Amino acid sequence: MDERTNQNNPKKWYQQSGAEGDVVISTRVRLARNLSGTPFPAGLTAERKREVAEKVRGALKASGNAGDYDYLEMGNMTARDALSMVERHLVSPEFAQCEEGSALLLKKDESVSIMINEEDHIRLQVMRPGLDLDEAYREADELDTALDQTLHFAFDDRLGYLTQCPTNLGTGMRASIMLHLPALEERGAIQQLAGTVSKLGLTIRGLYGEGSKPEGAIYQLSNQVTLGISERSAIENLKGIANQIIREERAGRELLRRNPRFEDTVWRSLGLLRTARLLSHDEFMALISNLRVGVAMGIIPDVGMDVLSGLISDAQPATIMAAARRDMEPGERDAERAKMVRERLAG
Amino acid sequence: MDERTNQNNPKKWYQQSGAEGDVVISTRVRLARNLSGTPFPAGLTAERKREVAEKVRGALKASGNAGDYDYLEMGNMTARDALSMVERHLVSPEFAQCEEGSALLLKKDESVSIMINEEDHIRLQVMRPGLDLDEAYREADELDTALDQTLHFAFDDRLGYLTQCPTNLGTGMRASIMLHLPALEERGAIQQLAGTVSKLGLTIRGLYGEGSKPEGAIYQLSNQVTLGISERSAIENLKGIANQIIREERAGRELLRRNPRFEDTVWRSLGLLRTARLLSHDEFMALISNLRVGVAMGIIPDVGMDVLSGLISDAQPATIMAAARRDMEPGERDAERAKMVRERLAG
Repeated sequence: MDERTNQNNPKKWYQQSGAEGDVVISTRVRLARNLSGTPFPAGLTAERKREVAEKVRGALKASGNAGDYDYLEMGNMTARDALSMVERHLVSPEFAQCEEGSALLLKKDESVSIMINEEDHIRLQVMRPGLDLDEAYREADELDTALDQTLHFAFDDRLGYLTQCPTNLGTGMRASIMLHLPALEERGAIQQLAGTVSKLGLTIRGLYGEGSKPEGAIYQLSNQVTLGISERSAIENLKGIANQIIREERAGRELLRRNPRFEDTVWRSLGLLRTARLLSHDEFMALISNLRVGVAMGIIPDVGMDVLSGLISDAQPATIMAAARRDMEPGERDAERAKMVRERLAG
Repeated sequence: MDERTNQNNPKKWYQQSGAEGDVVISTRVRLARNLSGTPFPAGLTAERKREVAEKVRGALKASGNAGDYDYLEMGNMTARDALSMVERHLVSPEFAQCEEGSALLLKKDESVSIMINEEDHIRLQVMRPGLDLDEAYREADELDTALDQTLHFAFDDRLGYLTQCPTNLGTGMRASIMLHLPALEERGAIQQLAGTVSKLGLTIRGLYGEGSKPEGAIYQLSNQVTLGISERSAIENLKGIANQIIREERAGRELLRRNPRFEDTVWRSLGLLRTARLLSHDEFMALISNLRVGVAMGIIPDVGMDVLSGLISDAQPATIMAAARRDMEPGERDAERAKMVRERLAG
């Protein structure tokens, strides 16, 4: 993974900011697909998993896109590198645990990843900065179609795409938006929001999905319903609700702006990030969240949202160690994190 | 007082740093003197106090030094300006309460002040940056001698200089050193130190003397004994003990240097001081103390000790209001303080 954490490489998707970037960090569309006539990965030996992986790899080659991708076998990967990929949302936490026979096709700009032999044979996901559901879906759909020409995905006319877990049956699609909601969190409005979106067939969760606690006021909003609904209408539903949350968050920020303590907190966060010699992960996430909203609201000039997005990704524990190519004690990691943050936020 | 808090004026004594400036902020020598044949101020009407003040003013003129001094009548002074002078150690807290008939002769660089009709007819004090007891005493003695030629201070061959309070009888001298002792404070060593110095005829107290709590790890070390001892030996005694405390504080700092949390705390303090929009007095004192030791230890470059000494003086509550020529609510004052600190510490 070293080359992918190297600062000299071309910009990754997450080092850019996109539409509604004040509130929306990124958009992701994930499709679950399986090869017809082959048992789900849970029922495969490592040997047979490898055959599936080779088939998928071959299909990508046949589509003419293989040159943009790296092929990574999970069995050869250190736990550090695998966890770093989880931190950067390139793979699921479950996939990081996968060993022999599981593999990853990862686009060089890290905007597309194809997990092979996670819960399903294929979990392909496309990520985009900001709110960009249409484009993320378009790319995922294009790749899906290209792979399908060779692989012939398991599909039932009544059920749609067949998946290991029934909650994915149908479209097999999970679209999600990563939102920065400091004002709604400050107001204690997230729980109510979660109740509301759940009635609308969506779910809102912490930074690393199901069961993860929210860090840095970052939340994932995603669709839950895959059956009896088209991909297009699922996307439109998500988009509509996302836009409503964005409006509420912005209104909440305008209320915060009237409180002099808020401006003070934002500036202090920049001061601490620019000077601290030790930064724990939790403190880093809290401070970068304050700074991000300050930049988004124009309180802090001369700091780019792209720099913050890059830091949120690169200053995660395993990603720091993956970049250094070695494991570290928490204290040493906190010093490394502080150094990285200081350098990138130098005034 | 406006002209004295104005930034365009020549440098004040406290905006410079002196010998052993890493630990010693300033040195002060104060002499208590009374006019023979005149009751102590407590027994004088406002009218008679004014006569005393005129006599002292005349004596300063006769000595040829009056041109360097401003003459300020306490009855004409706002509470804000009087408190500001306490904060800058130009007058005692008791003197700030004095009204009709009490007056101050203040040298334009604020290094010498002559309080007229405090507890005694005259309390003259000389302040110097750093550890500079000899020079402070020399200046005080010279001024004392010059005034004595006209005023003929009350003196008893057995008791020495006569003062209202018996604890000042004899030399009438109080010499004190303002010490920055963050390492000893951190180690919880101040109480033991207080016990030790008290056995040696000295006392150690908070920033504003008797009964004041220590702020910013700043302590005053002063002589207690005035009777049966010469000024010279009192000075030598204080100097010897001060040097021992300085050595202990430096040793404590070297221990702190080994703790990575300490360097972190020092840098964070600079970060907060450079960015905060609201700074309470207590937080300011804590942060500036951390920064001062960091500058003294060479951890923080490019920040002058003179800037810190100036801030410790100018960012006190009444001094902020005196500079603005108006009273302020605490919140507004905290914003003014933060602004002043940011401007002077700009990177």
